[in-house]
Amino acid sequence: MNEFLGEYLGTLVLILLGNGVVAGALLEKSKAKNAGWISITAGWAFAVVFGIFTAKAFGSPEAHLNPAVTLSVCIQSGHFERFLPFLLAQVLGAFSAGILVFLHYYPHWKQTEDKGLVLAVFSTDPAVTHTPSNFISEALGTFVLILGIHSIFSEANGSLVPGFGATLVGVLVWAIGLSMGGTTGYAINPARDLGPRLAHWILPIPGKGPSNWKYAWLPVAAPFTGAAIAAIVLKLFSKAVS
Amino acid sequence: MNEFLGEYLGTLVLILLGNGVVAGALLEKSKAKNAGWISITAGWAFAVVFGIFTAKAFGSPEAHLNPAVTLSVCIQSGHFERFLPFLLAQVLGAFSAGILVFLHYYPHWKQTEDKGLVLAVFSTDPAVTHTPSNFISEALGTFVLILGIHSIFSEANGSLVPGFGATLVGVLVWAIGLSMGGTTGYAINPARDLGPRLAHWILPIPGKGPSNWKYAWLPVAAPFTGAAIAAIVLKLFSKAVS
Amino acid sequence: MNEFLGEYLGTLVLILLGNGVVAGALLEKSKAKNAGWISITAGWAFAVVFGIFTAKAFGSPEAHLNPAVTLSVCIQSGHFERFLPFLLAQVLGAFSAGILVFLHYYPHWKQTEDKGLVLAVFSTDPAVTHTPSNFISEALGTFVLILGIHSIFSEANGSLVPGFGATLVGVLVWAIGLSMGGTTGYAINPARDLGPRLAHWILPIPGKGPSNWKYAWLPVAAPFTGAAIAAIVLKLFSKAVS
Amino acid sequence: MNEFLGEYLGTLVLILLGNGVVAGALLEKSKAKNAGWISITAGWAFAVVFGIFTAKAFGSPEAHLNPAVTLSVCIQSGHFERFLPFLLAQVLGAFSAGILVFLHYYPHWKQTEDKGLVLAVFSTDPAVTHTPSNFISEALGTFVLILGIHSIFSEANGSLVPGFGATLVGVLVWAIGLSMGGTTGYAINPARDLGPRLAHWILPIPGKGPSNWKYAWLPVAAPFTGAAIAAIVLKLFSKAVS
Repeated sequence: MNEFLGEYLGTLVLILLGNGVVAGALLEKSKAKNAGWISITAGWAFAVVFGIFTAKAFGSPEAHLNPAVTLSVCIQSGHFERFLPFLLAQVLGAFSAGILVFLHYYPHWKQTEDKGLVLAVFSTDPAVTHTPSNFISEALGTFVLILGIHSIFSEANGSLVPGFGATLVGVLVWAIGLSMGGTTGYAINPARDLGPRLAHWILPIPGKGPSNWKYAWLPVAAPFTGAAIAAIVLKLFSKAVS
Repeated sequence: MNEFLGEYLGTLVLILLGNGVVAGALLEKSKAKNAGWISITAGWAFAVVFGIFTAKAFGSPEAHLNPAVTLSVCIQSGHFERFLPFLLAQVLGAFSAGILVFLHYYPHWKQTEDKGLVLAVFSTDPAVTHTPSNFISEALGTFVLILGIHSIFSEANGSLVPGFGATLVGVLVWAIGLSMGGTTGYAINPARDLGPRLAHWILPIPGKGPSNWKYAWLPVAAPFTGAAIAAIVLKLFSKAVS
Repeated sequence: MNEFLGEYLGTLVLILLGNGVVAGALLEKSKAKNAGWISITAGWAFAVVFGIFTAKAFGSPEAHLNPAVTLSVCIQSGHFERFLPFLLAQVLGAFSAGILVFLHYYPHWKQTEDKGLVLAVFSTDPAVTHTPSNFISEALGTFVLILGIHSIFSEANGSLVPGFGATLVGVLVWAIGLSMGGTTGYAINPARDLGPRLAHWILPIPGKGPSNWKYAWLPVAAPFTGAAIAAIVLKLFSKAVS
Repeated sequence: MNEFLGEYLGTLVLILLGNGVVAGALLEKSKAKNAGWISITAGWAFAVVFGIFTAKAFGSPEAHLNPAVTLSVCIQSGHFERFLPFLLAQVLGAFSAGILVFLHYYPHWKQTEDKGLVLAVFSTDPAVTHTPSNFISEALGTFVLILGIHSIFSEANGSLVPGFGATLVGVLVWAIGLSMGGTTGYAINPARDLGPRLAHWILPIPGKGPSNWKYAWLPVAAPFTGAAIAAIVLKLFSKAVS
C-alpha cells in the first residue's frame, strides 16, 4: 500500500514539474516563455530527481515512477505482481499532475491560441510523423534509460552515497532529453504521456483542440518495447557472466 | 541570538544573489542583459545553496531563510517561539540585501527607463493578473518546496553527506523556478518579496516607479498558506504512519 | 574480453549521446533545433558520465572510451598490450553509435539540406581552416583532458566517493568544450571523430555530401600527440618528485 | 617550492579555461559565438573547479589561485610570508594562460574587428564606467567570495567528502558571475585581470587595440580591498564567538 502511495506521489511530482516546465516555456505571457531546450531538459531532469526523493519518502524504496521501468524490473526479477498496481499508481499520479498544471497555469490557457502548444504541455508528439522511426526513437530512448539505470546501480560502479543515485538518474534523463529528445519529445514513460493526455482530454481548458489519441499508443507501446528488450538483454548478459 | 544572525546573514546572501541575478538580466547595459530564464533560475538556485551555507556557518543550523519554511517547522513541531524572531531576521536580511543590490548595480538604474523592470529586480509580480490563480500558484509552489525539503531529509532517503542536502534544496528551488515560476515569478518566500519591496520603496532609485503595494500581500499570504497546508498534511501523514 | 566489451559499449553510449545532442541541435525540424552551445556541451558532458558508468558496468574498470586516454595510460605504465584492442573496441563502439544516431534521427536527414550540418552531426571540422592552429587546438585540448584526469584522481585530491570521479570527468569535458571547443569542435578523442566519420561515409543518408577525409587525420593525430606529451610530462614530473 | 608550482599551474588552468570560454563566445567564426551568459559563467565555474584540482595535484593543498584569497588567508592567520611568492606564481600562471589562449584561438583574432572584444577575452572592463560603483562592485563580489569560501569550509557545515569543496567553490564563482558579474565582469581576482592584460599588451595579436591600463588598477585594488575587509570581519567575528 505504501508503495502505491509512493509511486502515486512520486509520479505526481515528476509530472507536475515536468509538464510545468513545458507549460512555462510554451504558454503565452509566461515569464519563462521561450526558455529554450536547456531549460526544458533541465526541468525534466530535476523533476525526476525530486520525483524519486518523494516516492522514497512516501513508501516506494525503488521509486520507479515509470511503467516501463516497472516492466523491466518485473522481467529481470521474474515477478509481475507489482506491475498492474504500479502502473495504476503511476498513471493516476501523472493524471493528477495534469490537473495541477492546469490550475497552476490557469490564466495562461486562454492567452495561448496555438492548440498544438496547449496539447504539447500535456503529452508528446513527433517532430516529423514517421511511425517506424518514431517507434524506434521512443524504444531506443527507453533502452538507454534502462541500460543507464542498470549501470548507475551496478556493483562495478561502487556503493553510491545516499541521494547520489537519484541525482544521477535525473542527469541520465537530462542526457536522453538533450541527445535523443529532438525527434519525439522523449516520453520514454507510458504514464508520462498517457496520464496528462487523459487530463487534457477531460479538463475544461479554454479553447483546447483534440487530444491526438491516434498517436497515443506509440509513447505507450514503444517505451514498453524498449524496456522489455533492455531487460531481456541484461538478463541474458548477467546469465552469461555468472 | 546566533540563530538570529545566521538567519539574517543567510537571507542576506540569498537575496543579494537572487535579486542580483534578476538585476543582471533585466537592467540596461548589464553584461548579463537578457541572460534568460535558465540563468535567472540557476542564479536563484545557487543563491539558496550559499544562503544555507552562510546561515549554518553563522549560527543557524536549520537555515530556514524563509518565513514560510519557519512556519511549517513550527507547525510540525508544535513550537512557535522562533517564528517571530526568525521572521524579523529574514525580512531584515532581505531588506539589507536590497540595499546592497541597489549599490552594486548603481550606475544601471538610470540607464533603465522601464519602471516595471526596476521593480522586478526587487520583488515579484504576476505574468497575468488573476488573484485566485496567482494565489494558487504561490501556494502550490511553496507546498512543493515544503514537500521537497521533507522528502530530501526524510529517513527513507538515507543520511546525506555534508553539504549535499543544501545543494539539493538549491536544485529543488531551481526546479520550482523552471517549472512553476512562469506565472508569478515564484516568490514562495514572504521575506524574499517583502524585504526587497521595502528597499525599493525607501531607496532613492533614479526614476523609479511605484512599489505595487496592492499586490504585496499575495506573495506573503499565499506562501504562508501553502506551507501551512503542507505542514498539516505532513503531520497527519506521519501520525497515520506511526 | 570483458574490458573489450566495456570499452565498446561505453564508447557506444558516449557517441550515441554525444552525436545525438549535435543532431538534435543541428537537424531541421528537430524539437531541439538551435538548442545552443550550452546544450551541446552539456550533452557531451553527460555522454561522458554515462559512457563511463556503462563501461565500468560491462567490464572495463578504467573506462577509457578514448584511444588518446589509452595511449597516455600505456605511456605512463610502460605497457602497450591493451592499446590496439582498446582502440578497436572504441572505434567500433563509435561507429556503431553513428548507425544508431542515423536510425534515431531517420526522418530528419532529408529535411536537412545543408550537407555540412549533416556531416557535423557525425564528425568535427574546424571553424577556420588553419592546419597548424587546428592541430594545436586539438592537441592542447587533449593535453588539458589528460592533465585534468590526472588531477581528479591524484592522491592529493583525496579518495572520491563512488561515481563522483566519473561525474567530474564529465564536467571536465564540459569545461573543455565550453572553453576550447569553439575552434575545432573539440574531438580530443580519435575514436569520437573517426568512428562516426566512417558511419557517415558508409550509411545511405539521404542527400549527404562528402565525408571530408582530407581533414580526418587531424582529429586523430593531434589528440594522440597532446596525450603523448601530457603522459611524458606527467611521467617526468612523478619521477622528479619521487 | 611545490606550492609555487601548484599555484602557477592551477592559475594557468583557471585562466586558460576562463579566458577560453570568453574567447569562444566573443571571437568571430567561433563555433561557440554568442554562447551566452550561462555558458560564460559556467565556463568560469568549471575553470575554478579544475584549477583547484590541478593546484592540489601539483603541490598547493590550499589552492588559492587568487591573490585576494591569499591576502585574506594571510590576514586571518597573521602570517604574510606566502603572499608575495603566491602572488607571483598566480600572476605568472595567468600570464602564461593568456599566451595559450592566444595560440589556441590563433586564426580567430584577425577575423575579429572589434578591438574591445579582443581585449575582453583577456581582461575585464566595466559595463558602465563609474569608478566608485565599479570599485564597490569588485570589492563586494570579492567579499562574497571570501565569505562563501569561509562558509563552505566552516565546521558548522560538516566535513565535506573529497572534491566536493572544490566543486562548491566553483559553483560559488558561478553564482557570483550570474548575480554580480553584469556590472564589471567579476574579476574578483587581481591575477585573473592583470596576468592576461599583460599578455594582451605584449602579444602580437593581429589588429589589437590598447590594453586599457587606465582601468587596470581597479580590478587589482578593489578585490584586495574586499578580501581584506572580509578577512578582518571574519577575524573579529571568530574572536567574538570564542
